[in-house]
Amino acid sequence: MFEAELRSDTLKNIVSIVSTLIDEVKFTITPEGMTLKAVDAAHVAMIEMNVGKEAFGSYSAEDTELGLDLEKVKGVLKLAGSGETIRMEQDDATGKLVFKVGNITRRMSLIDTSGMNDPKVPQLSLTASIVVPIEELQKGIRAVESISDHITLKAGPEFFELSCEGDTDSVSLKLDASSASIETDTDVCSMFPPDYLANIIKAIPSGTKVNIELDNDYPVKFIFTLADGAVKVDYLLAPRIESE
Amino acid sequence: MFEAELRSDTLKNIVSIVSTLIDEVKFTITPEGMTLKAVDAAHVAMIEMNVGKEAFGSYSAEDTELGLDLEKVKGVLKLAGSGETIRMEQDDATGKLVFKVGNITRRMSLIDTSGMNDPKVPQLSLTASIVVPIEELQKGIRAVESISDHITLKAGPEFFELSCEGDTDSVSLKLDASSASIETDTDVCSMFPPDYLANIIKAIPSGTKVNIELDNDYPVKFIFTLADGAVKVDYLLAPRIESE
Amino acid sequence: MFEAELRSDTLKNIVSIVSTLIDEVKFTITPEGMTLKAVDAAHVAMIEMNVGKEAFGSYSAEDTELGLDLEKVKGVLKLAGSGETIRMEQDDATGKLVFKVGNITRRMSLIDTSGMNDPKVPQLSLTASIVVPIEELQKGIRAVESISDHITLKAGPEFFELSCEGDTDSVSLKLDASSASIETDTDVCSMFPPDYLANIIKAIPSGTKVNIELDNDYPVKFIFTLADGAVKVDYLLAPRIESE
Repeated sequence: MFEAELRSDTLKNIVSIVSTLIDEVKFTITPEGMTLKAVDAAHVAMIEMNVGKEAFGSYSAEDTELGLDLEKVKGVLKLAGSGETIRMEQDDATGKLVFKVGNITRRMSLIDTSGMNDPKVPQLSLTASIVVPIEELQKGIRAVESISDHITLKAGPEFFELSCEGDTDSVSLKLDASSASIETDTDVCSMFPPDYLANIIKAIPSGTKVNIELDNDYPVKFIFTLADGAVKVDYLLAPRIESE
Repeated sequence: MFEAELRSDTLKNIVSIVSTLIDEVKFTITPEGMTLKAVDAAHVAMIEMNVGKEAFGSYSAEDTELGLDLEKVKGVLKLAGSGETIRMEQDDATGKLVFKVGNITRRMSLIDTSGMNDPKVPQLSLTASIVVPIEELQKGIRAVESISDHITLKAGPEFFELSCEGDTDSVSLKLDASSASIETDTDVCSMFPPDYLANIIKAIPSGTKVNIELDNDYPVKFIFTLADGAVKVDYLLAPRIESE
Repeated sequence: MFEAELRSDTLKNIVSIVSTLIDEVKFTITPEGMTLKAVDAAHVAMIEMNVGKEAFGSYSAEDTELGLDLEKVKGVLKLAGSGETIRMEQDDATGKLVFKVGNITRRMSLIDTSGMNDPKVPQLSLTASIVVPIEELQKGIRAVESISDHITLKAGPEFFELSCEGDTDSVSLKLDASSASIETDTDVCSMFPPDYLANIIKAIPSGTKVNIELDNDYPVKFIFTLADGAVKVDYLLAPRIESE
């Protein structure tokens, strides 16, 4: 049994973020909310998401799993205006998920989740912790696009930097304590693939503060919430380590 | 002799609707206004349109025919802002149609109408009559796109439904008496090709109330007006009848 | 030594106009401002531009040359909102040009200007002088597109006309003294290639008054300013002369 109502904007943000990695997802449903663990096909990035029942206007569920094709869900989202409510309900007879948006009813077949195992999320303790408005990262990502095939994230006690060095040209976004909150005793630095970084940074809705955890040649972790804290997201991206 | 002025929005709406079926049209001009009967190349849909002289800011004409290439007229419409006036005048010396928009003069050669016969519009008496705001149909059409190769229109004494059934998924827009005015004693239902239905529904300007006449495995008729009732349109679409 | 700050809109307008002709430009820098002379590869059109130091928020330079790839500069412009300040500074150690937009630093390699010679700008004395709001020319250019392979500019003591004659259709924009200021004793007329004319007319920002100098089968000159007169532009376009 699963019945829930939520704002279209919340569902849209969730779908935008998860679909940077995969198209078919398994949500684990409990009476307390929905959770998701997903890794992309190349095993470069991972998302752990927790959608608490308080993210919903109404929520009532037993333990179950929902396998969703996110492209189809994006089709439903196009039918809802900003602020409109989307109702989801599993039809016990057919097993299908029924979306209701205004006068429209959309019955969607689910994906078989039996072969979809949750990835193991590594436990990491990373040296530096920086909190940054997503708008700054979005400006930085627009600046570095098309310069190089890797992006460097760097932090020190007094700065956070997103930069990119090409053969002849370079770009950097440098923030100090006036626009980012930075906690680290030493300088740390790792390089990352620009496409993954660009996709997740563009998918995070404006107004979000992102907590970046960073270390030397280690994965980076983006921790943020949606829907006034009711949706918690951890995004983990493997570094690109240069062989010498 | 033909001289007329009308608001660019009125001409734009007329052109949008007719060009869902054909690119080259013959308007029959009388002192009372312009009329048009057109059928698409596949003979699936038909438009009958009556543009009364009251649709024009000024109008003065003798009986004649105008053969127009609608793509060229769309080019003229791009030169006019919303609410701007377009002046049309046939040049008796050259036979060309002269459009004036602000400081711009566009002389357009006409299409020979001698081979363009008016299609015969069938007289139909259809069981159900439903009046619906076009916005509802537009939402419904957006919802059903890409699900299936036919759309079902259905009506009963208490409902009107636009729906679409794919192999695994389905969508429906269901309206009751609160958002549509419905007149029928029995349930009626026909299926239609989605592309034709989508094109006409998207071409009808928002704010329009559409009168839908429907029956069992019969053509559907969309009856509506533009320009405060001065332009009357009948759109007829053949059903897709499934052989068993 | 070169250090300057200017509004992103000013730089954007400069780049839009110059890039209608070429992608790689040489700016000649003096303590008084920047100048540029450029001709397109086909030698059909020529730009002479003078960016006075008063176009800048701050400006400090010695005599030098800057070779810029305008596509890269367009990339920098995308990082700046309207009204935002862009800072440019040549790095004496590396020779690179450093752009600063907010928290972003973009280091750009320069193009070698040693082989880039300034074109000779012909001195012309043209009969007719017309001053026209760019918006009128932009409407006219939209109207004539796709009709023909040349555009005629014509002026007489009482009118200015931009027109275009195809095999069967024609378009003209005709202005009288109410919307253009016209100075000529005789009628003059020349034909021009539509693509060049369209590109420069679309690149000139709205609100600009353009002084058009015109003669019989002679180049046309567009003279206008940007940034409240601080940027002076002369654009010269060769006529298309029909052989008989």
